[in-house]
Order: sequence, then C-alpha cells, then structure tokens
Amino acid sequence: MANTRQQGVDEARLQGITCGPLPGSRKVYAAGAMHPSVRVPMREISLAPTRAKGPGGASQLVANAPVTVYDTSGPYTDPTAHIDLRKGIATDRRAWVLSRGDVEELPGLSSQYGRDRLGDASLDALRFPGERKPLRARGSTPVTQMHYARRGEVTPEMEYIALREQAGVEESTAKGYHRGEAFGAVMPRKITPEFVRDEVARGRAIIPANINHPEVEPMIIGRNFRVKINANIGNSAVASTIEDEVEKMVWSIRWGADTVMDLSTGRNIHETREWIVRNSPVPIGTVPIYQALEKVGGKAEDLTWELFRDTLIEQAEQGVDYFTIHAGVLLRYIPLTAKRVTGIVSRGGSILARWCLAHHEENFLYTHFDELCDIMRAYDVSFSLGDGLRPGSIADANDEAQFAELTTLGELTHKAWKRDVQVMIEGPGHVPMQLIQENMKKQLEVCAEAPFYTLGPLTTDIAPGYDHITSAIGAAMIGWFGTAMLCYVTPKEHLGLPDKDDVRDGVIAYKIAAHAADLAKGHPGAQYRDDALSRARFEFRWDDQFNLGLDPERAQQFHDETLPGEGSKQSHFCSMCGPKFCSMKITEEVREYAAAQGNVVPENALTRGMREKSQEFLETGAALYRPE
Amino acid sequence: MANTRQQGVDEARLQGITCGPLPGSRKVYAAGAMHPSVRVPMREISLAPTRAKGPGGASQLVANAPVTVYDTSGPYTDPTAHIDLRKGIATDRRAWVLSRGDVEELPGLSSQYGRDRLGDASLDALRFPGERKPLRARGSTPVTQMHYARRGEVTPEMEYIALREQAGVEESTAKGYHRGEAFGAVMPRKITPEFVRDEVARGRAIIPANINHPEVEPMIIGRNFRVKINANIGNSAVASTIEDEVEKMVWSIRWGADTVMDLSTGRNIHETREWIVRNSPVPIGTVPIYQALEKVGGKAEDLTWELFRDTLIEQAEQGVDYFTIHAGVLLRYIPLTAKRVTGIVSRGGSILARWCLAHHEENFLYTHFDELCDIMRAYDVSFSLGDGLRPGSIADANDEAQFAELTTLGELTHKAWKRDVQVMIEGPGHVPMQLIQENMKKQLEVCAEAPFYTLGPLTTDIAPGYDHITSAIGAAMIGWFGTAMLCYVTPKEHLGLPDKDDVRDGVIAYKIAAHAADLAKGHPGAQYRDDALSRARFEFRWDDQFNLGLDPERAQQFHDETLPGEGSKQSHFCSMCGPKFCSMKITEEVREYAAAQGNVVPENALTRGMREKSQEFLETGAALYRPE
Repeated sequence: MANTRQQGVDEARLQGITCGPLPGSRKVYAAGAMHPSVRVPMREISLAPTRAKGPGGASQLVANAPVTVYDTSGPYTDPTAHIDLRKGIATDRRAWVLSRGDVEELPGLSSQYGRDRLGDASLDALRFPGERKPLRARGSTPVTQMHYARRGEVTPEMEYIALREQAGVEESTAKGYHRGEAFGAVMPRKITPEFVRDEVARGRAIIPANINHPEVEPMIIGRNFRVKINANIGNSAVASTIEDEVEKMVWSIRWGADTVMDLSTGRNIHETREWIVRNSPVPIGTVPIYQALEKVGGKAEDLTWELFRDTLIEQAEQGVDYFTIHAGVLLRYIPLTAKRVTGIVSRGGSILARWCLAHHEENFLYTHFDELCDIMRAYDVSFSLGDGLRPGSIADANDEAQFAELTTLGELTHKAWKRDVQVMIEGPGHVPMQLIQENMKKQLEVCAEAPFYTLGPLTTDIAPGYDHITSAIGAAMIGWFGTAMLCYVTPKEHLGLPDKDDVRDGVIAYKIAAHAADLAKGHPGAQYRDDALSRARFEFRWDDQFNLGLDPERAQQFHDETLPGEGSKQSHFCSMCGPKFCSMKITEEVREYAAAQGNVVPENALTRGMREKSQEFLETGAALYRPE
Repeated sequence: MANTRQQGVDEARLQGITCGPLPGSRKVYAAGAMHPSVRVPMREISLAPTRAKGPGGASQLVANAPVTVYDTSGPYTDPTAHIDLRKGIATDRRAWVLSRGDVEELPGLSSQYGRDRLGDASLDALRFPGERKPLRARGSTPVTQMHYARRGEVTPEMEYIALREQAGVEESTAKGYHRGEAFGAVMPRKITPEFVRDEVARGRAIIPANINHPEVEPMIIGRNFRVKINANIGNSAVASTIEDEVEKMVWSIRWGADTVMDLSTGRNIHETREWIVRNSPVPIGTVPIYQALEKVGGKAEDLTWELFRDTLIEQAEQGVDYFTIHAGVLLRYIPLTAKRVTGIVSRGGSILARWCLAHHEENFLYTHFDELCDIMRAYDVSFSLGDGLRPGSIADANDEAQFAELTTLGELTHKAWKRDVQVMIEGPGHVPMQLIQENMKKQLEVCAEAPFYTLGPLTTDIAPGYDHITSAIGAAMIGWFGTAMLCYVTPKEHLGLPDKDDVRDGVIAYKIAAHAADLAKGHPGAQYRDDALSRARFEFRWDDQFNLGLDPERAQQFHDETLPGEGSKQSHFCSMCGPKFCSMKITEEVREYAAAQGNVVPENALTRGMREKSQEFLETGAALYRPE
C-alpha cells in the first residue's frame, strides 16, 4: 500500500540493493576482436579437484577446469564495480551508438508528459537524479539493429552477442552429447558475429537495444540462440514502491532473467521506470497502453492515438527496449471472445477491445501502425506484438479468436520489417499439452519465423499458487518446439503481486524450462553444465554441485537442513540415504571391484575425461578469457 | 537424528495427526450396485452462486452445482470418522477377502524376522499395538486380482475402482472439451466394472491390494485410467521418527498421493512399516532389498536368497501392496555402466550389482524369479520391476545399460503373468525432453503394455533444490505419452531427506503433472475441473477458485498476503492489477457492451451453461451420490 503515499526514495533501501557474486563464482570478460571496446561478462564457476586413484593405486588430486556460464546479472555481481543507484550503471554502449553518426542528442524531452513530469517540483524527491538528454535518429533513416544488419554491417552489439552466446561452448567437447531434435532451428557450434547479423537481417532474431539505453548489455532473442526468459515486475495501484521495483529487477537478473518487463500500473510509473532503466543491464520491456490508460483516469474509451503516441515517445526516450503493442485486436475479432469461458484476459487486449466497441472503430494501433513503426525505428524500440486475445483458460486454448489475431500479427510483422523495425510475437497463455505444438507451428508459418515470446503456457488451470510449475511444463515444451523467449509466471499468478521470493521462484522455474529446451534442441552450449554438475554430484563435491546449479544458495540451504556444517560438505553420503546406503558410494566400489576383475578398462573413464578436460583448459582457457 | 535413539512413540504427536476436510469440501460416498458393501469416497467441493443478469436486466443468483473430485485422503478428511492411530483405520475390505474363501488365517507370522521382532520386549513401546494374524492363500492357487480377472470374476475391488475412476465424469458434459492425443490409450467415458476387470486380466492395469492390507481403498494403475502419483516417505539412519513418517503418509495422501512408498533405511523399519500400513488407505510399496541389506549390516555381498525371501514374507504379511524388485540387474549388464557419468544411481541396483560382482553369480532375484512369483501371488503383492540401471544424469539417459535391463524386465513380465502375478515396470530417472518418448515406446513394446511407473524424469541436472520442477516437466510429458503412475520428486532430491513441506511441494507438482497428462490424453474426467475453476476465476468467486485448486490453503494464503480480509474475497479485482486494470472486469463490460450492440447472443453463454449444469445436477446428482 506504500506506493499510493510514496513521497521520496529511501536511501537506506537503495544502499541495500542485492550485490556480490554468487558462491564459487567470479566475473570474467571475453574481449571483442572486431570491436576492441566489446567486453562480455560471463560467470566462471571454480571447481574443487577430483580425488582419483592414480595408475599405482595411490590417491591423487586432479584439477577440474572451471565452468563458464552465460551471465545476466550485470555489474551487481562484480565486486570491482561501483554501484550507485542514484547515478545508474555504466553507459559504455553510448559510444557505439554515437559512433554510428546517425543519431542526434535532443535539447530536451519530446513528449509533453515527460516535460510535465520533469517540471513538477512535487516529484523532485522521487525523481531519478540528474537530467539526461535523449537521443533520436537524425532524420528519417532507421537506427535499428535490423537496419544495420540488412546493410551488412556487424555492429559492436552483434559481436558482443556472438561472444556472449558462445559462453561455455568452447570448453565443452560435445563428446557423448545427445543428439537434439530442433524442429528446424539451426544452432551452429561456433556463433560468429556474421551469423548474428544474418539472423537479425532475416528477422529471425531481435536485439532489443534502444539507443537511449546505453546501460544495456546486448542480448539476442531468436530460436537459433539460447532460449531466453523474461521476468515481469512492476507496481500496482495497491502495492509496491520504486525501491521495491529496482530491487526486484536486480534480483531477477541475479537469478537469470534475460529481460525484464516493467508492468507498473500504479502511481509514479514514469519515475519508477526511469530508475529501473538507468540501473538495468538487461533490456526493459513495457506495455505502453497501461500508462496511457492511467493518463485518462482508467477510462479506455477516452484513449486517443495522440495521447498514446506521446506515451510511446515518452517511454522511447527513457530507453525502453521493447513495447508490447496490441495492434492485432481487431474490431471484428472481439465478438469471437464472447462465448469463451474466460473472455479476454490480456489487460491490454481488454482495454483495446473496450475502446473499439465504445467507438465502433478499428483499433487505433492497427490503423496507425506505420506511424508507430516510424517512432519505433527512430529509437530502435522493438515490437513485441501483443496477443490481446490469448486464451485465459484451458477451455479457450487455440480458438478462433486467438488464431485470427495471430494472422493479423503476421501481417503486421511484414509491415514492420518493411520499415526495418525489429519484431517478436507474443503467444499464450493457457494451453493443454497436446495443443502446444500447433501454436508454434502456426506462429512460425504465419509470422515468417519472427521470434515467438510466450507466457508459459500453463498446461492446466487447477493449481493456483503453483502456476510457475503448471506453466514451466508448457514453457519447456514450447521452448523446445522453437519459442525464443519465455515470459515467466510466478507462484502468485492469478492471486496477487509477486514479492521477491516469488520472483526468484518464477525465474528459476523458467531457467529450468529454458535450459531443458536448449538441451532438447541440442544446443551445443547446454549439456556441458549438466555433465559438470552430475560429475560433481557423483564425486560428492557438494559445493561444486551447489555452485553449478541455478540456485546455489537454496541447494546449500536444503543440504544444511539435514546435515549442517562444513564437515558434511565433504561427506560421501547425504541424509536421504545415510552413510551405508548411498548408491553413488556403492557404485564407486562396484567400479573399483569391476576394474580389479578386469571387467572394465583399468583407468576409470570418468577420471580420464577429467584429466583430458583439465589439460584442454590449461591449453586454451587462459587465451580465451581475460579475468577482471 | 531422533530415530537412532527412539524408545517409544509420542502420544501427543499421534493425537496431532493432520485431520479435517479441505476448505469448502465434504466427503460423499458412491455406492456399489453389484457389491452393496462398496462405498467409494469422493470429495465434493461446494460452490458459491453466480451473480448474473436476468432477462430483464435485474441481478439474480444462479446456483452452481458442486464439483466432485477423486479423493485419496482416506478417513482423515471425514469429520465423522473416528481416527485412532493406535488402532489403525477401518478394515472393511477384510470381508471381501475372506468371502472369496481362498485364504486362510495363519496361526502367527511366517517370517523368522517378524517373529524375532515380535518377541523382542525392548520394542514393546515402539510396536503397533495388538496382534494381527496374517492371511495367506490356502494352497497354491493365486489370490491375485489378476487371477480373478482372468477367471472372469468382477471383484468388489474392481467395482470400487470403476466408481472411483468415474468421479466427476458424470457431472461433466464434455461439451466443448478439447480432443486429446492419447497415443493409443483408450479411456471410455463410462468406466464399467467389466472394463476394469478386462484391463487387469490383460495385464494392462494393476490393482495393488495385498490381502493383508484390509485398510486399503482400492485403486488402479494403468494407462487407460487417470494418471496416478506416488509419494516416497521413509526414515534414514540419520533422520526421522515413526510419528514423522505416519504424519508424512497422512499428509501426502491429503494432497493427493495415490500410493506411498516407505523407503525407510534407518532403524526400526519393521515397526515403522506396521504403523504406516495399519493407518494407510492407499497402497504401500517398499523396496525389500533395503531392509535385507540392513539385516546383513550393510554388506551387500552377505545377502542371500534365503534372507531376502524371509524379508519378502515378513513384509507381505504386514500388508505391503507392491515390491520393487531389481531382478533385471544382470551380471552381464553391469560393465555397461562403468563408462557412465553417474554409474548406477538406483540404491537397489547398486546393491545387487555389488552382490553379483562379489559372487560372480547371476542376480539371485533373477534366478529365483519363479519362487518370488509364488510368494507374491500367495498374498497378492504386485511387482514393481525396478530399473536398477536407470540413468542418474542427462548424460546417461537412454543408454545401452538402461535398455538392456528393460528387455529383461519385459521377459520377467511374461513370467509373472504366467503365474497370475500383477506387474508394473519402473522407469527413469534423468532424461532430456527429446528422449522421453523413446522410453515410453520401448516400454510399451517390450513389456507388452504392462503399466509404466517412472521417477520424473528430470529434464535437466542443473537445478538442485528445484528438482520437483525439473522432473514435473518430464513427468507431465511421459504421463501424456502413456505412463500410468508418476513417482514424485521433492525439492530436496539429491540434497536431503524431505520434510513435510517438501512432501507437499512434491505431491502438488506431481498432481499438476498427472492432471496435465490426463488433459492432454483427453481423459473424459479431466477438463471439467479446469473449466469450473476458470469460471470461478472469471466471475471473481475467489473462494471457489481456491477450493477447486489442488492446494486451497496455499492459494488463499497467497491472496491474503496482498489483500487480506474477507472483504477482498468478494472483490472484483486483485492486487496484481488493482481495481481499475482488471482485465476480467473489463471483459465483463465488453460483453455487456457487445450484447447491447447486438454483437453477441443476448443471454450470456456462461450463464446459460451454468443454469443447464445446475438443472442437470438437481436431476441426477442426488441419485448418484449419497452424502455421509
């Protein structure tokens, strides 16, 4: 309830932002070759040595190469970075944007609303400090990554992404990896900047990176890359403060969110957004219609294109990287929802449906789509074409309304591409398992392989309180089938606004779904982490098992609950089975016994693999990464 | 750590067992027609009325028929039942067993170990009170449900199951249901006792119901029925007491476990098991090799067939309903695991591997399989043929060792069926999504459609602390493909012994997976619950939404966190969106508006459906169920 009365930001809470590396991890940076200013952060997890039997039977320690993983957490996990939320994080990317010579710094904000807020002295205590002049395309030439890609230009952002997507691939041998089933996706083992460029040029991937978001660490969304996840945050009229939301953003990227959507619908959402963008290393998405509706006091029928346009510019100049635009909610589709069990459940969709019906006119986002594109491309804001008619229940899945809208989104995709604007397409929602693949197939076909970005889908409606799980099932499957980004669902879905615990639960559930999808697709940078963790598990390197996992802290906490103390982290058993019954311990003995009987190769295959890896690391590792 | 010192059971904790109905629910019973003593418990969830606009525009209340769901929770949720854990729950089924005239009551326990424990006065304070004489087949004729089924006999157990599986199907119209994809499963809308008999006779389903478990409420495991879930409980040498384990059993069935496996490996496991079986309305499974190993001080090489045989009889006479038997771990398969990343991870599998290697002899469970069958059929214990060589990591999925063992399990299935012993087959484990379906296909083919019972599978190894989620993904998928029962995995998997919270999280995750699978298969009794909950959600009947969910208490708790108080349970919004932005509220207005414009049918389709349902309920409901 605090936000309705918020007068200023709490300094102590800003200072208390979650910082510091995850256990056993340090930040390393990969350097660009084409663009020397490119410096890609990764997380390196160090491992304990393996205690193995040498040739003479004597015990010896064999070093294990560290494991490098993709890192979304930004400077907050780098102990050498100076974090001051009142200043925002580093803006290294600004130099790349300016060096292209196609943007101009404006004298001030272009949007009326932005200027009004800036002039309102009562907001001084809440406002992000310092004035920042927005950038905009000089003239009418697009400044989008798609535009550059089509011109054949490999931007620093593209090289950054190529290195970033490569995290861990170099150190994995891929020997013994399972063959994936990628349903047409093609994921090369070596991701080159040129490959990134080509995917963006074709519209098969997007790089959400507004020229006004120089804090962003570039990332890519497309089905030939790692599956990404988005975390939704944002206040509402009844809960949350600016500090809460900034902390939620930092918290969600700590656990692995690739992008964050600020879905605020309460008060001070302009100011909240500024704090978030200035401190966010990941792309920020919004649904501008929420704020537009706020501006007309919640009366959908009072919305106008002019007011919406001002909102777009306001947000584009703050640096929002992608906008959800519900331009596919057409007047003629609305009656198709009347017989549904749950009608229209998308907030944006229902707002526009109400507007259309009130005016008996076509959706103004559809009729002004070209003008919309022109705004988007002047700042390089990507479209996330919203599925305003997505099903809100199992009963309504894959119905006429949903697929009719999808067809329109396909049509709009081609319109946007004509203007060099990047596009992804939003998808459901609530879909039972047997109907999931149809969604993906139709989307690929109708939207010409533009990236798909789905919310779940939830595979059943009967588990309020556990919808991170009902939906992680659907998310893993649709990610496998080809969805490029999965929008998380938290345990609070349908029940309330997520708090920090819910954000963590939602993010981890979706990291699981995304990684399970990468594995199933056969992504060359996926299985090595599973294998490293499984080896650690098998060898009772408990800390390594925790640290290689998605949530080292919770894993350790769970282990501590039954066997606390440092000693038990060396134990060759756990509380599940006790000292005598541990199957892994027994298996080790079986191996030794079998080896003595000549049943298996004398040198333990595992140990040999480790030794090879260790050698490989010493030869190549130092050259590849340059530690901070 | 308490168990290692446990001297007696704590009366206060026995009294504190979790009892009472779930919110908004009451127990109803369906009565048998063929067998009048059949009385099948179900849970009836009552709903609030819908506030709808009548023809004249006036607001009116339309009653909603209650929703009946399958109920595993036993007498603990029936306020009229008298629960005394020291006496055990009702033994109604005993009359059915005796009436068949093919069993005899023995003068005392047949197993040496059982007699020794009974004679040990130091165990008096721990022991379940009262002496109970075991039943056994009179002569060599089998007393298994499969035997009766093949003879053409419909037992009371079969009629019970037919009614039980029908829960909710009668009240669902199936109008507007999605077509399922059942991969060859056939699920009739009307489940007759004859259908149950036929499935059991073919070996396509099993009824785990030991003649010494008269407390059991019969249930069936087969892919043409609802997908079932199992919860593992059990102490270990380092944690838990008898009272803990009884409470875990009651707790797990409260949330929906269909069977419970007691995997105790600590002290007093004979006594712990007796307490569990006497108080369990669901079938109890065990892995007898765990206790056998305990008896030889943990030295696998000291195991003998004679000692194992005594253990089987000991447990069969206590009433264990199914035994995991790792008879497929053959000597020649063991070297196939030496190159694995995680070797042999099944505890039973590794114990037997060690035994085989130590003696250079074939697995004694394999060589004594016919004798084993003769014991099982004298008590009607079902086989759960264990996958001792299941993969313990993504890397090891679907390998030669795993599938070699599966072939042997297929061979043993036919041997057991020849002796009228019921069989299900255990499956993995850790399997990436693209390799899951191969498991199901092979199992159906090799094991001639004997029910498959899988542990997860986990779809990635990288999330210790969240393996209920990594595995719920795999479980939902393999359940859809045809697995009959899913063995749950808790968040503590790989890390420690699950506590009550973990049991609840594991059970709910698996109820989600099982229900998602039922929906995807097109089970006629699945979608009505999703639809009822979605209607409640859409109409802001908050309590109904909570109560129709798998965990009403948690749903309500989450809602309370942001909007506490009874008032907000009537609110037409929630804290996620606040009062102005609720899409469902807006959709209602869209409907009204559309109706006024003549765009949709004047009578709200939802309201009409409700009215029809209400009518239908009044006509048929009272006749079908007889409330307690």
